Amino acid sequence: MPVLANPEAVATCCRYIDYDLNRAFTSTILNSKATPDDPYEVRRARELNQLVGPKSSDQAFDFLLDLHNTTANMGACLILESSYSIFTLHLCHYLKLQNPDLSCCVFQYLFSRKESLGLDSVAKNGLTLELGPQPQGVLRADIYSQMRALVISAMDFIELFNQGTAFPAFDMEIYKTLDRVNFPLTEDGALAGTIHPQLQDQDLEPLKPGAPIFKLFNGEDVLYEGDSTVFPLFINEAAYYEKHLAFMKSEKITISVPALSALTSASTLAL
Amino acid sequence: MPVLANPEAVATCCRYIDYDLNRAFTSTILNSKATPDDPYEVRRARELNQLVGPKSSDQAFDFLLDLHNTTANMGACLILESSYSIFTLHLCHYLKLQNPDLSCCVFQYLFSRKESLGLDSVAKNGLTLELGPQPQGVLRADIYSQMRALVISAMDFIELFNQGTAFPAFDMEIYKTLDRVNFPLTEDGALAGTIHPQLQDQDLEPLKPGAPIFKLFNGEDVLYEGDSTVFPLFINEAAYYEKHLAFMKSEKITISVPALSALTSASTLAL
Repeated sequence: MPVLANPEAVATCCRYIDYDLNRAFTSTILNSKATPDDPYEVRRARELNQLVGPKSSDQAFDFLLDLHNTTANMGACLILESSYSIFTLHLCHYLKLQNPDLSCCVFQYLFSRKESLGLDSVAKNGLTLELGPQPQGVLRADIYSQMRALVISAMDFIELFNQGTAFPAFDMEIYKTLDRVNFPLTEDGALAGTIHPQLQDQDLEPLKPGAPIFKLFNGEDVLYEGDSTVFPLFINEAAYYEKHLAFMKSEKITISVPALSALTSASTLAL
Repeated sequence: MPVLANPEAVATCCRYIDYDLNRAFTSTILNSKATPDDPYEVRRARELNQLVGPKSSDQAFDFLLDLHNTTANMGACLILESSYSIFTLHLCHYLKLQNPDLSCCVFQYLFSRKESLGLDSVAKNGLTLELGPQPQGVLRADIYSQMRALVISAMDFIELFNQGTAFPAFDMEIYKTLDRVNFPLTEDGALAGTIHPQLQDQDLEPLKPGAPIFKLFNGEDVLYEGDSTVFPLFINEAAYYEKHLAFMKSEKITISVPALSALTSASTLAL
């Protein structure tokens, strides 16, 4: 079932009207009593929760693909919720194998809060496809065709699983959130500089201690002061300026994923 | 004198609030009587007209640089108003010579209406600097530093002119608007396809008859049916979706620009 998550924001070509929908799927928001003054996205989050959830209930959809794009040069990034399932990891592996030209990376986005905040957390399993770079308000044929290929591959995988296919164990590299890095600000809270030209577009490339990360408007460089190499993501994402977020730091780890047994009951996944 | 043309739009990170400010500097809008219901940008256009104009009057500023950016891959594009001056052409030539790494192109943007609609038409002479690609809501260090270099060069040129420098005649290639090309639409007015991947990012590259320009969502290609090679600009510019404009076609011509005599009076240009 395809759903346009935020039709009002789409109509005005912005990320959201009143409240970031991508942070609205908390149990607090979903379960609190509706009032006439609720922001549009709070109301919409509850509608979507009724449609594909309720979150954490037996009636919730088995699987949800959340389709996003970013102004950052992240390529085809598969974003796992904090509480990802073995099923979702097998899906990621399948997407990587079926789309080798996209060089998909798998990223585990951990929010500072423990609870998952995104729409895909409402279903029992979920995955966010984050493709870029694409400016806001622009549809690029290359990004669109990559997204289409990934969605088709995901449907293929679920169909194979539903038909009783088992999937063997594998090892996979994933990027795991370490921390966020904020833009340098003036005392008045205005931007004091930009992402350094040497960091711009270098998402998922190693960032070494001492490398420049910001170019201040006064001409000075700000260097990365960490003590280990990290992998930045969401570098210069338009939607994160209001959060002052310049980029996310991640570490690259290898995880061992156990085999996914074939379905034995007659139940199949409902999308 | 630096001026932020549309502070309300900047505050909400959009192109405009009520009315496209970049089309608001017509004599009809500027000279009609103010009413309480006037859109924000209509009021703002009149304020700016008082500040740097009035348009077509003796009190108008001698020169105005209008700083813009685009999601299109246009590099550093110098946009002339329809009624450009020899002074402005010499400025363009100077900017090209002083910034060879930017490969500046000069573009004459002719609107279907004869009157110039942009802010730079309010001053006696004006030039728009259009730099890209940069997503809306994002500040890229490379674009920012190019803009800075061009503004400094423009100030240098004006300073040289004010100090009595004469500039010799030269020939220059410019791109001249031919026509606009609209997106293919469905009967309901929705997008029926995207810019073709072979055309995306190919601003100012020759577009030959028979080359694909759109990829329809049904998979078909739409070919360019013109009978001569043209040079597209503003390919997939975010702000033009609402106008259904997919790109502008231009022709490349060479113009001969006469010498610019040295200032003889004590008057200098006021910016």
